[in-house]
Amino acid sequence: MKTDEFESRLAALAERTNGALAGYLRERDNPQAKIYEAMSYSVFAGGKRLRPVLLLESCAVCGGSEEEAMPFACAMEMIHTYSLIHDDLPAMDNDELRRGRPTSHIKFGEATAILAGDALLNKAFEAMASSKSKNALRAMSIIAEASGTEGMIGGQIVDMESEGREIDINALEYIHSLKTGAIIRSSCAAGAVIGGGSEGDIAALCTFAENLGIAFQIRDDILDVTGTEEELGKPIGSDSKQGKNTYVKLVGLDRSRELVSRYSGYAKTALEPFGERAEFLAALTDHLTGRNS
Amino acid sequence: MKTDEFESRLAALAERTNGALAGYLRERDNPQAKIYEAMSYSVFAGGKRLRPVLLLESCAVCGGSEEEAMPFACAMEMIHTYSLIHDDLPAMDNDELRRGRPTSHIKFGEATAILAGDALLNKAFEAMASSKSKNALRAMSIIAEASGTEGMIGGQIVDMESEGREIDINALEYIHSLKTGAIIRSSCAAGAVIGGGSEGDIAALCTFAENLGIAFQIRDDILDVTGTEEELGKPIGSDSKQGKNTYVKLVGLDRSRELVSRYSGYAKTALEPFGERAEFLAALTDHLTGRNS
Repeated sequence: MKTDEFESRLAALAERTNGALAGYLRERDNPQAKIYEAMSYSVFAGGKRLRPVLLLESCAVCGGSEEEAMPFACAMEMIHTYSLIHDDLPAMDNDELRRGRPTSHIKFGEATAILAGDALLNKAFEAMASSKSKNALRAMSIIAEASGTEGMIGGQIVDMESEGREIDINALEYIHSLKTGAIIRSSCAAGAVIGGGSEGDIAALCTFAENLGIAFQIRDDILDVTGTEEELGKPIGSDSKQGKNTYVKLVGLDRSRELVSRYSGYAKTALEPFGERAEFLAALTDHLTGRNS
Repeated sequence: MKTDEFESRLAALAERTNGALAGYLRERDNPQAKIYEAMSYSVFAGGKRLRPVLLLESCAVCGGSEEEAMPFACAMEMIHTYSLIHDDLPAMDNDELRRGRPTSHIKFGEATAILAGDALLNKAFEAMASSKSKNALRAMSIIAEASGTEGMIGGQIVDMESEGREIDINALEYIHSLKTGAIIRSSCAAGAVIGGGSEGDIAALCTFAENLGIAFQIRDDILDVTGTEEELGKPIGSDSKQGKNTYVKLVGLDRSRELVSRYSGYAKTALEPFGERAEFLAALTDHLTGRNS
């Protein structure tokens, strides 16, 4: 797929996702308008909509409709955003800036930030529960498991407990598979389910997502050392400053680069059964892992 | 319904709910065991399981099975508990004790308490999404709306903004209808939906729940002035100390007592179409609003 074709399709998917998100979060003319304002502030803070794009494209390669997939795509972005709001809180990472703007608790106060996060997690399920797809319940189940105690939240707890301690590569992989991998995997799995994919299609997209997730995480660790703040979306060196365990710290820069290349190769191999239909997902893999790493 | 018959049925429903909750929250032998410990600590802190009981009985009066209703009943309790954990946080009500025990952030630290709340909200939807009921999606939609920005979370935002300010009775009723009323209403509505109730059954149980919710809230305000700490489950006088707006503050003790009696009467009237099947819900109404008020 040509670069300009890829980029215009990526931008169009993100734009349609933004339109749908704006619908869920539009401010009501009622006494609780503040909560919509706080939710929108963080959702429209310049995220790349990676998870929605993965979900929409996984649905598309299985032959499903974007309209049916959109509530689930928006749900993934709302879950991702809630996790960032709560991660940034003083009791967690205590970050005052994200993508160059004040974090939610700096802008709205801590109580409203906590509620805005809660409200986004809740709204994700409201959006999905209003689906008319015959596969909605299965897709929700996949997403709920990935965002919960055996997925993202579980990963955050283990990550918190490991900060400042030495851990080995297996423990690091476990944390990432839960903390960021589960959401990426469930985006693809839920998209395939809504798209009416066969069990084989769903499994192939899970394999794709698992490998993409690992490659993406290692590249993030590399950018924390070699990248610019703009590429990374947060201050350079913040992970190592906070004593976080990273691939670069554990296996070094060269080996980390090799691993990105290996896992992104595995990801693209998993797409082969879909042929030309998966060209965009293959290009996305290169886009997310290939450049500047 | 005789008092001892009512009490043994109430206890049995709570016990079966506790058994099902324990299944969802049992500690895994994995690195994220701490999150299950924190979730269980708050869920098994002596709550009366009012919302699960309302859901299970609303399902029963419509002729539905308890087995199908149980994941939804557990979800209501998990949503209720998450809201208490987050309400107690230093940035919110800053409470160190609940029902005589240290609150979650005192026991586990603030970061874990935030995540335990998130995890309970998430687990509520995990439980519901694993349902095999043909009406599961509609019930989830009702519950998600009631716990979100047009329900409980919306009520919390408006309540926070009104603290320390004078508000009128209409504003107070609006806050309660969202903050506590919506969850009570959705417990009955979702139970009726899972139970296969007719649209008329669902509407009647909503009317019951709306009136019960108001009566219950006013009685809570009365107990904050006249009750014992044991009856109320929190220190007496804490609402007025925090400058919270209550019915007693706005309309006085005598008028508040009249209102409890009036709304619990409306609640019981709404049950009449169900005849003897609703005897337990009528007795529950008396139990929740009639004594010590």
